[in-house]
Amino acid sequence: MNSFGRLFKLNIFGESHGDSIGITIDGCPAGVSLINKDFEKDLSRRKGGDRGTTSRKEPDIQKIISGVFNKKTTGSPITIIFENTNVQSEDYNFNETPRPGHADFVAKKKFGNYNDFRGGGHFSGRLSLGLVAAGVIAKKIIHPVKIKALIEEAGGKKEIDNAVNNAIKANDSIGGIIECEVRNMPVGLGEPFFDSIESLISHAVFSIPGIKGIEFGSGFMSAKMKGSEHNDLFIDTNGKTATNFAGGINGGISNGNNLFFRVAVKPTSSIYQKQKTINLRTGKTQDLIIKGRHDVCFALRLPVVIEAVTAFVLADLLLIEQGIS
Amino acid sequence: MNSFGRLFKLNIFGESHGDSIGITIDGCPAGVSLINKDFEKDLSRRKGGDRGTTSRKEPDIQKIISGVFNKKTTGSPITIIFENTNVQSEDYNFNETPRPGHADFVAKKKFGNYNDFRGGGHFSGRLSLGLVAAGVIAKKIIHPVKIKALIEEAGGKKEIDNAVNNAIKANDSIGGIIECEVRNMPVGLGEPFFDSIESLISHAVFSIPGIKGIEFGSGFMSAKMKGSEHNDLFIDTNGKTATNFAGGINGGISNGNNLFFRVAVKPTSSIYQKQKTINLRTGKTQDLIIKGRHDVCFALRLPVVIEAVTAFVLADLLLIEQGIS
Amino acid sequence: MNSFGRLFKLNIFGESHGDSIGITIDGCPAGVSLINKDFEKDLSRRKGGDRGTTSRKEPDIQKIISGVFNKKTTGSPITIIFENTNVQSEDYNFNETPRPGHADFVAKKKFGNYNDFRGGGHFSGRLSLGLVAAGVIAKKIIHPVKIKALIEEAGGKKEIDNAVNNAIKANDSIGGIIECEVRNMPVGLGEPFFDSIESLISHAVFSIPGIKGIEFGSGFMSAKMKGSEHNDLFIDTNGKTATNFAGGINGGISNGNNLFFRVAVKPTSSIYQKQKTINLRTGKTQDLIIKGRHDVCFALRLPVVIEAVTAFVLADLLLIEQGIS
Amino acid sequence: MNSFGRLFKLNIFGESHGDSIGITIDGCPAGVSLINKDFEKDLSRRKGGDRGTTSRKEPDIQKIISGVFNKKTTGSPITIIFENTNVQSEDYNFNETPRPGHADFVAKKKFGNYNDFRGGGHFSGRLSLGLVAAGVIAKKIIHPVKIKALIEEAGGKKEIDNAVNNAIKANDSIGGIIECEVRNMPVGLGEPFFDSIESLISHAVFSIPGIKGIEFGSGFMSAKMKGSEHNDLFIDTNGKTATNFAGGINGGISNGNNLFFRVAVKPTSSIYQKQKTINLRTGKTQDLIIKGRHDVCFALRLPVVIEAVTAFVLADLLLIEQGIS
Repeated sequence: MNSFGRLFKLNIFGESHGDSIGITIDGCPAGVSLINKDFEKDLSRRKGGDRGTTSRKEPDIQKIISGVFNKKTTGSPITIIFENTNVQSEDYNFNETPRPGHADFVAKKKFGNYNDFRGGGHFSGRLSLGLVAAGVIAKKIIHPVKIKALIEEAGGKKEIDNAVNNAIKANDSIGGIIECEVRNMPVGLGEPFFDSIESLISHAVFSIPGIKGIEFGSGFMSAKMKGSEHNDLFIDTNGKTATNFAGGINGGISNGNNLFFRVAVKPTSSIYQKQKTINLRTGKTQDLIIKGRHDVCFALRLPVVIEAVTAFVLADLLLIEQGIS
Repeated sequence: MNSFGRLFKLNIFGESHGDSIGITIDGCPAGVSLINKDFEKDLSRRKGGDRGTTSRKEPDIQKIISGVFNKKTTGSPITIIFENTNVQSEDYNFNETPRPGHADFVAKKKFGNYNDFRGGGHFSGRLSLGLVAAGVIAKKIIHPVKIKALIEEAGGKKEIDNAVNNAIKANDSIGGIIECEVRNMPVGLGEPFFDSIESLISHAVFSIPGIKGIEFGSGFMSAKMKGSEHNDLFIDTNGKTATNFAGGINGGISNGNNLFFRVAVKPTSSIYQKQKTINLRTGKTQDLIIKGRHDVCFALRLPVVIEAVTAFVLADLLLIEQGIS
Repeated sequence: MNSFGRLFKLNIFGESHGDSIGITIDGCPAGVSLINKDFEKDLSRRKGGDRGTTSRKEPDIQKIISGVFNKKTTGSPITIIFENTNVQSEDYNFNETPRPGHADFVAKKKFGNYNDFRGGGHFSGRLSLGLVAAGVIAKKIIHPVKIKALIEEAGGKKEIDNAVNNAIKANDSIGGIIECEVRNMPVGLGEPFFDSIESLISHAVFSIPGIKGIEFGSGFMSAKMKGSEHNDLFIDTNGKTATNFAGGINGGISNGNNLFFRVAVKPTSSIYQKQKTINLRTGKTQDLIIKGRHDVCFALRLPVVIEAVTAFVLADLLLIEQGIS
Repeated sequence: MNSFGRLFKLNIFGESHGDSIGITIDGCPAGVSLINKDFEKDLSRRKGGDRGTTSRKEPDIQKIISGVFNKKTTGSPITIIFENTNVQSEDYNFNETPRPGHADFVAKKKFGNYNDFRGGGHFSGRLSLGLVAAGVIAKKIIHPVKIKALIEEAGGKKEIDNAVNNAIKANDSIGGIIECEVRNMPVGLGEPFFDSIESLISHAVFSIPGIKGIEFGSGFMSAKMKGSEHNDLFIDTNGKTATNFAGGINGGISNGNNLFFRVAVKPTSSIYQKQKTINLRTGKTQDLIIKGRHDVCFALRLPVVIEAVTAFVLADLLLIEQGIS
């Protein structure tokens, strides 16, 4: 199901080398100001081009085809598309020789020979353009809540540039860790079952290709802690706590402290080294060389995507809370 | 929203010290054999009573009040309730002095003075009885797929009993790590957006109280790896791979290898030590002693719950796959 | 799917001759006062017993098993069950000889031999008890909006009692027309696509067994009218109109005038006359005598059910409107 | 919520005078053949141009921007857009003087001054282009089920052309009745609660602007009938009945006989006569002349739209049935 959300609802569509990719946002309140310039900063953060990211150069210009009138949202669905212009489909036929770490094999099995394999098709990281665009709108709705995601380490190192340069030299790729913090959180968003904040954020985050783990607050470290250490001491009647091992969430519900979570991103599957794969027709193992264009460390491009999905989860929860309470 | 799933759909309800807790399973195919004995094993695995788990002794007997006729599911919604009999509500009023690590504070803020605070109310771990019951049915539907979850470490140690005993002696509590593996997985379950297998499993897992993190396959370790190490080599045309860093999932879709994930569980928030909290009425910090009955390491009780939520996610995906493909 | 609604959400379950029938209301705001007495009037309006309605006498006492504490809703799911006590299952096995007009045939085909055929099982009009209970709560939420449904004609006559008596004498059954009007409607509920007020009300109304048609405002008469007659003249800036052919709805959205619709109810399928049916085993036509207990004109019992479904549609739309606007 | 369906799911977007209108179909199985020519017939049936329909001439050419590759659906969302080229927005500002029978008033109240009022905006009948396009795909999925909708009367007459000509002469508009019949129906689609076939079809039908009533089988006539007349006699073991007062549905579930329903369409609200309305700014009644372009009897254009919505309801139910059974 290519949709997400209950009141603020996204529908994503498109393939990497098709006509366009895009997103529809249904349930956005009327009257939110929205102009093209609003998208610039976040789309540019997501864009490839720097060392460590793909050399595919797309203009990545959003085209709003519905739901905005006189620079304001109308209350009707907002559809935003991005045309695909810079496609090199000839590099991308892996129907017989699935690339390790990619979705080629599962896509072929799930969709038969009908899968649009070109450039990863519907599985392409390019679809995150739509997520980022939705995030731009969601961030306006949740104001004054502020989301900030940063890459914290790459290839296991804090010296991100160094790690990337070494990977480039080695014709290899590396993963990374992204941290996300949300300030000015209201108390009371989320539900114990099944829509805890952790449930919804992780649901959205794991739809970004390449995420392998998520942890909130103390995360995996909590498993090694004692209750007497882990319990956050309340220090005022607004629920502020001395520590924040809870990551800003108790019982699935925001407690007013900063929301905090970390995400693990795997190394890019496409690398410039020769690899092995199995030929699905012949059943024999053979060499595989991936041309195409790809990131050495695609984690570098994800902070803005993580912010976007967090923003639309929170926008949805805010609208629901307004509705029910 | 206390519901989950698209075709195989759960609705959970109840409070720890109310009349009953329960679950409705909507969308279960007709003709699945179901007798009371089917629930015994999994409910007993979840039950408290051993060292390290709560001394609350409930009979935990499921009562099927709809959807089963002549020992088979009918195709109509299956509602299963568990009566609450052994309640000591006097131990549980923390409306003014919220317990650290618990949902007392957020529940009061979200639901005002209307929250049923007794025994954690709707936030109680007791509601996982319903999840386990749904899991019993889901496991039948996904046959021959097999799910096995185990506690891997507690309080940072592999010697689980030792760690628990030490925590008991210290009047403290400890967390743990649970691993879950799924064998005989079909290829092709899940979607790239937004319903990746990781998205759905994490959504369900994070509705279990006390989970702080989840990782699939290589998980957080992947962030330190190189692509050349991380890419799983295909070794046959069924998609079997030499390693399983992917955790059985590519592009959000099952690849036929074992599904594998790990979950971090925090230490129980209730401990038998004196703690501090803030009095919401007076605004002053005061001592807090929690009586009640609680687990020293509630992670010990969660493997069967993790299995259950995994089972109903997979049951739903299997029915959807049958529908669309 | 046995659920309905987006924020104020119902889940229905149960079979006529099973343990219980019931409903879960998820998304009800916290703090709505709710005591057992609140259900009396509407449940008694629905109850059989008068001339023209079934002689099955159930106490029909609701049991609230979750979501209410200290006479107020808690914000958690409210589950209400009605135990089945007065069952005569031996009268109800029509597995081989499906009753004309009933669901016996389709249930057998859809659910195989697993269908709980006793008393109509999940198809029984008895499940509308749950709808009425949900309506009692929804009516509180939509206050001061007022819903009033009445039976307008039975068997084609305005003299309802006469028509019913004649049908009783003839060992036959009759249908009827119910009108429903909603006063104090706010402007702006509903959506052009796909959730027009007409869409949602008709969706809910047609889940009541035995409804054959619905029309809003001018309804079928509109098809014979001219635009110059049909257009409702605005007479004040609140949108009040001189006529109400629109039925209180334009473009799927409430316009502040009274909501008005009419519903056609078929004659009860069970009659005390000998009928013919086909024996599904032998393939031969044979006589059929239906014992059991049934209404001569079940339309008499439906006004309160129509009110209930209208109430929960409007409750849901009101909460959504509060959320998004 | 601008979406509909559970497995075969539509999301509609666009405004009459915006950039484009369109629809996304999520959940369409992979491998359905789809070429541009497939849309011609149904889009042309919907198109204006004949006597009695609007003189707005749009090319109405669908543009498939995702989900189709090598003339087959890929299993990813299919987005189809129609560009708006022939707009005369200057004719359409009724913000102060709402047109009787139109959504101007409610749209302004619901969406404030942000509503895109041009050409009816999101409320425009033009959006039904998307419905028809989705219907083209749905009809392929439900093969060999066949849907046929026809206009049965206009302005209360069977002589459709005459009635239309008279209305044109009178500068007035007329309504109509559409009948829809579905052959080759499988037994077992639909649910007793809440997703009866009647519930789902009426939900979809009432999202088409201008529908005032719907009746299935005997419909409103049933209210005047006796059970002994109304009960359809089974004549074979496949469930075929001698009459079809049930309209092909029992207990919300298809019984294998032809599905049959009738729909009432109101007269077009825009007429070429001078009308009265209230000026929302001055509070005074004033004359209103509607220029623009409009149908004299827009019911003439709806049969193909009715077919389309019926097709996607049935496609969804078929996929669900495949999934659960």
